[in-house]
This record gives sequence, structure tokens and C-alpha cells, in this order.
Amino acid sequence: MIIVGELINTSRKVISKATADGDAKTIQAIAKNQAQAGAHYIDVNAGTFVDKEPEYLKWLVSVVQEAVDIPCCIDSPSPAAIEAALSVHRGIPMINSISLEKNRYDGLMPILAGTDFKVAALCISDERMPETVEDRLSIAEILIDRLTRGNVRIDNIFIDPLVQPVSTKKSCGSAFLDSVEQIIDRFKGVHTMCGMSNISYGLPLRKLLNRTFIAMAVARGLDGAIIDPLDRDLTSAIYAAEALIGKDDFCMNYIRAFRSEKIG
Amino acid sequence: MIIVGELINTSRKVISKATADGDAKTIQAIAKNQAQAGAHYIDVNAGTFVDKEPEYLKWLVSVVQEAVDIPCCIDSPSPAAIEAALSVHRGIPMINSISLEKNRYDGLMPILAGTDFKVAALCISDERMPETVEDRLSIAEILIDRLTRGNVRIDNIFIDPLVQPVSTKKSCGSAFLDSVEQIIDRFKGVHTMCGMSNISYGLPLRKLLNRTFIAMAVARGLDGAIIDPLDRDLTSAIYAAEALIGKDDFCMNYIRAFRSEKIG
Repeated sequence: MIIVGELINTSRKVISKATADGDAKTIQAIAKNQAQAGAHYIDVNAGTFVDKEPEYLKWLVSVVQEAVDIPCCIDSPSPAAIEAALSVHRGIPMINSISLEKNRYDGLMPILAGTDFKVAALCISDERMPETVEDRLSIAEILIDRLTRGNVRIDNIFIDPLVQPVSTKKSCGSAFLDSVEQIIDRFKGVHTMCGMSNISYGLPLRKLLNRTFIAMAVARGLDGAIIDPLDRDLTSAIYAAEALIGKDDFCMNYIRAFRSEKIG
Repeated sequence: MIIVGELINTSRKVISKATADGDAKTIQAIAKNQAQAGAHYIDVNAGTFVDKEPEYLKWLVSVVQEAVDIPCCIDSPSPAAIEAALSVHRGIPMINSISLEKNRYDGLMPILAGTDFKVAALCISDERMPETVEDRLSIAEILIDRLTRGNVRIDNIFIDPLVQPVSTKKSCGSAFLDSVEQIIDRFKGVHTMCGMSNISYGLPLRKLLNRTFIAMAVARGLDGAIIDPLDRDLTSAIYAAEALIGKDDFCMNYIRAFRSEKIG
């Protein structure tokens, strides 16, 4: 499971303030904590600073990579902001995210073409949000076709079928899970990923729902997630799910996580 | 989800002592707690008392049903013990369990034939424990065929595909989950159920694994479980899983369980 740590996002007050103040220490502490908890990428998002997004995103990448040895997940729809961030990024980043929305697609595709970057690809088009499994599959098919024809390797693509709140429509959970299974079955080599928290919107005990849902999704083949890696119960559910579904030889990752007190 | 509360079993010291001492109060308190926590059946098992099993099982049924308004799950391979328990049971019991093992099958089938009893049916034959999905499906097919020809309604049958430890073979979890899905798909109207705890045998943090696995199984269609209903985290995972998978209209069961402080 590829874990993208979601905590460095200026929509969070602590990050917004630290970014505006140039307070590298706060950013670096949160980056380190996420890496230690098992994140493979540190998401950086400065989207709340409209005018200064390129400058701030570049700064975030610099200070994060001074503190940790893992790549960033550069989280912006803005080509200018992504290019600024890439100018200082070391290693192979993930770009979060392309979609079939024309502006976003046209802006990001030239940045991705021919690179070895990982890319999160959202199942959204300009027409509408996807509802059914078929909606998601047809958007995924076009995205994968165009990306691979633009020389993005299929195993660098992380399709996000979009989690929607089960409180608004009871089939939202199943539609997502079926989509994950069918996408990885139909497009060999592609990955799937998502944020979880939308699933529980409007309901009590959201963290319980989020971690229960991620276990179900891992059982259907999900292999990426944008989450708070410091949520120990959530991390525990992911390690448990991978052991239970046979993705963890001799349960060694699970046992190692237990011994190093990462879970439980 | 049909929940069978597993706590009244003489393999547990407290139950063994209370049964030998004729201490109805202890048994009744545990029965009440399980019913309040949401159990639909109270499992009664006196299997450790070989000679006295019929007498003790009958006594357990009597004292349990003095305390709670729900039926028992009569848990024994012994026709004599089951008949004794049935002589005092009120309502429609579940019988736990028939299998394809010849002695067990021949002893229990006459008790079940033509009744409206629920029955747990284990995917075991005399030849061996099942390993693959196909092993389980072929045993399930014979059991369902024979039971229905003996006038047991298919919707009274709860097939238990047998949970085996993922620590011994990493495919055990997937094989179980695939079996659940295929059994309910192939044999319309049949239920599936199981105990969970074998899945985590030999591993640390067993309760974490058990509750993660039950969420995965609910997502594949499992609709019965023999569990400790007083394990609040486990119960929470079941309510969450049913809401997430669209088996809980408007998430009302989930919200009601939250408001009555059963979960979380």
C-alpha cells in the first residue's frame, strides 16, 4: 500500500500559518512524523494561497525534503505551481492530480508526458461527477489511454475512482469498491488510490467508518491512499487488511509494525 | 447481520463453574448482556461435560430463556444433547452445526428434517478440511442439496465456509472471502456465517485482525457471525460495515447504535 501523508495542506490552520510565517520547523516536524509513521510520499498543498501558490509550494517542497528522504506528492491543479515545485524537488514525485476536466488535463499533461512521475488521476470529467461503476470505468479508460499514449507508464498511474458520502446514497460505498476491483482487473498494471474521508461525511464516528472502509477497499485491491498516517487506528486497519488479504508474506510487515509499536 | 453470542460455552471457566454449580444468575447475566448488545441468538454449549452434556445443555437453555426473549443457538454434535435442549426450548432455535461428516450428518439430519429450525452448516467432510474455494463450494452444494431435499428451507441454512488462520497460509483469508461471495451468488437465498477468531490464530493483536476481517466479509455478503457481542470494537466494525456496503437504509441502524451508545 502506497501511503501519501495528507497533513501538509494549507487548508489546515497550523500549516497555513507556518507557511505564511516561513516557519520551516513546524512543517518539517509534521513531515518527519508522517515519514516515521510509514508515509511513502508527503503531500504538499498550498492551494489556499491563490497568488502565492507557486512560491509557497516550492518552499514547502524544499523544507520538507530537507527533513525527510522521501518524495513529495505535489498537490495542485496549477501548472505554474507544479513547475515551481518541480524545480526544487529531488527524486521522483507524485503529481496530484490530473482528471478529464479540460483545463486541468490540458495544463498537466505536458508536465507528465514522457516522465517517470507517478500521477493520481481522478475519475471526473467536465460533464459531471461519476455516479455508477460504468461512469468511473469509462473515465478511467480514457485517462489511461491518453496518459499511456503520452508516454506515462501504466504502473505510474494511480486511478482515484472518487469516494462519495454513503450518507447521501447508500450505494456509494459499493460503487466505489466495485470500481476499484474492475479497474485493476481491466487495466493490468494500473494502481488505484483515494482519500477516504468523504465516505463518512455527515455521519457520526467518522474515523470508525473511514478505517472500516479502507479495509474493505484493500480487500478489493486498493493499493494507494491519501490519509493521515498519524491516525494509528487507520494505519492498524491497513496493516491488518494487507495481512488478511494475503498481500503480506508470512504477515511479516504486520508483525514488524506490531513490534515497532506502529500499530495496535 | 445475524449475531450469535458465543459466551455461554463451558470451555470458558466461568461458564463451566456456573453450570456445574447450578448458578443460574451468572449464566443469566451473561445472556442478558449479550442480548442487550444486539445478539439475535444465545449460543449454548456444554460440550466439555461429556456424560452430562444433555442434562446441562437442557438446563442452560432453560435458564437462558428465563432471562432473555431471544432463541438459543444449540451448539452440539450430539443428537441426544440437542433433543434434550429442544425439549425445553421456546421459539425457533438455531442448531449449530451440521456438516458432511457422516456421524454428525446422520445424527442431526433427522432432527432438522421438516422443521423451521435455523441451521449452521459447516463446510467439512470426513475426507478433509477444505482448502480451496472449490472444496468449500462442492461441500456446500451437497449440504444444501441434502438439507433442502429433507425439507429444510434454504433461507434457514447458514453455510459456514470455515475461517482458517492466515498465519499458516496467506491465501486463507481470500479463500474464505471468495467462498462467501460465490456461495451466496450460486445458492440463492442461503445465508453465510462463521466464527472469526481462527483467522488471527498465532498473530499479535488478534482482535484488530478479527474486526478488520469481519468488515471485509460483510462487504462480500456475510450475514451471520458467531462472536462476542460484548466486544464493542467488533460490534462497531459490523455496524460500520453494513452502513458502508449499503445494507443499512439511510444508515439508520448505524446512527441508532451510535445514539444508544452501542458503538464507538
